[in-house]
Amino acid sequence: MKILRKISETKRITSALILKKKTIGFVPTMGYLHEGHLSLVKAARKKADVVIVSIFVNPLQFAPNEDFTKYPRNFKKDEKLCRNEGVDYIFYPDIKEMYPDDYSTYVIVENVSLGLEGKIRPEHFRGVATIVLKLFNIVQCSFAVFGQKDAQQACVIKKMAEDLNVNTKIIISPTIREKDGLAMSSRNVYLNPEQREDAAYLYKALEYARRKLTLENYNRDIEFIRGQISKLIKSRKTATKIDYISFNNSRTLEEVKTLKNLKNTDILISLAVRFGKVRLIDNIVIKR
Amino acid sequence: MKILRKISETKRITSALILKKKTIGFVPTMGYLHEGHLSLVKAARKKADVVIVSIFVNPLQFAPNEDFTKYPRNFKKDEKLCRNEGVDYIFYPDIKEMYPDDYSTYVIVENVSLGLEGKIRPEHFRGVATIVLKLFNIVQCSFAVFGQKDAQQACVIKKMAEDLNVNTKIIISPTIREKDGLAMSSRNVYLNPEQREDAAYLYKALEYARRKLTLENYNRDIEFIRGQISKLIKSRKTATKIDYISFNNSRTLEEVKTLKNLKNTDILISLAVRFGKVRLIDNIVIKR
Repeated sequence: MKILRKISETKRITSALILKKKTIGFVPTMGYLHEGHLSLVKAARKKADVVIVSIFVNPLQFAPNEDFTKYPRNFKKDEKLCRNEGVDYIFYPDIKEMYPDDYSTYVIVENVSLGLEGKIRPEHFRGVATIVLKLFNIVQCSFAVFGQKDAQQACVIKKMAEDLNVNTKIIISPTIREKDGLAMSSRNVYLNPEQREDAAYLYKALEYARRKLTLENYNRDIEFIRGQISKLIKSRKTATKIDYISFNNSRTLEEVKTLKNLKNTDILISLAVRFGKVRLIDNIVIKR
Repeated sequence: MKILRKISETKRITSALILKKKTIGFVPTMGYLHEGHLSLVKAARKKADVVIVSIFVNPLQFAPNEDFTKYPRNFKKDEKLCRNEGVDYIFYPDIKEMYPDDYSTYVIVENVSLGLEGKIRPEHFRGVATIVLKLFNIVQCSFAVFGQKDAQQACVIKKMAEDLNVNTKIIISPTIREKDGLAMSSRNVYLNPEQREDAAYLYKALEYARRKLTLENYNRDIEFIRGQISKLIKSRKTATKIDYISFNNSRTLEEVKTLKNLKNTDILISLAVRFGKVRLIDNIVIKR
């Protein structure tokens, strides 16, 4: 496994791989890798000749009030984990080379970026779309793997790739969960033991909604289900604020207000909840 | 020469060319080709194994009040001209395939897009950057050739390519002029004979400025030179409005207000003038 720090060197290597007809599989990350990331790496490893993981905490996707400087980092551990998974290259660039002082180009995906996380973090997906496109151009990957955990991010990147005719196939991999159902996330380390216990209720609430929408009759009112999810989460003492509980078309992210006339539309149920200062997101997709 | 109408077919062909280690040279155009375009094609032909010209009147770079529907088109003539220049492929896509109904991704280049043309045509460079990136991804070119005639466009595209780590080299080719100095432009066909005659004064005025800035002493005041350019243009009866006469750093497009302390900064002098309803732009670069 080789660690690449420079853009030009990375491009040189990936250009040579393409001429050798190698399939490059890519997993972009912000580091502090956990089982969730490793499942993406495994998915890439299965299909690619060469697997590249990038580790870059992207300042552009953090708002000034967010946790950019405090975001957890542990390169040595990440390196070991990648080596164990058979990664070929880690791309680990410098902020100054990725965003020089006169940097001024941004990729904006309208519509799918606007609701949910986009409402609370208005510049976030601009930052995500921009860094992902930069990384795609540098690593020149045939495909890239993203997690379903960040459902809206997955939609934004798919839409960007489609709209800009990007030559990288986007693959979305299922969310990996702890035994009690909590979705794996680098931010889980922020949780204290009591919050950690309560956080498992996010998935319990989502699974409740799945049962309501699938096992019982389809005419259940969405506002009723939303209310029940909310009640269940609020029953946990450390859940201090629900940012949203949302029902959307899983592809276009248009809000779903009623279950009537919804045949063939997969429904994304997503939520964002704060446990003290720790903000967690989770989601499930109901196939129709 | 082959005409490609479909994105997928074009990508298939360009991907195969890359694996054969062919250098793809690209000239994006809006068609209605003239000697200016052909000089770009010739520049590409000299360096590339395979030359691709795109012909696509890009709706995204026209404001609602602009001449999108009236923009001159003549595909049969363009085809003949391309064939004569030894072009290998014309990429001639459908608007509906380039911008499907749910299209929603845009590339924004801040700073260099803001002044000059950007001030008068605020969405213009967003449209240009977006279509150019799409085309680069489709034709997968090693290099692309643009004209110095559209000086700000050249700066925007260079900056975008640099910032987004695009794998296409940007080449800027000199402006081609009629015998009397008028810069070649598809929009020149809109000029009536009297306007056509007066339009030559744009270049005469720019050349006057060049003499002032180079042959005479460097302490000439920029406001004085701007005034003289303005006077010369206003002396032509059909020149109905000067949108701007501007002095800028040719790379960053920062405004140049004084010639003092400007060593090693090339100066772009650019102007936009209306002759009745026909709006023309032109520029020269003063090397320092």
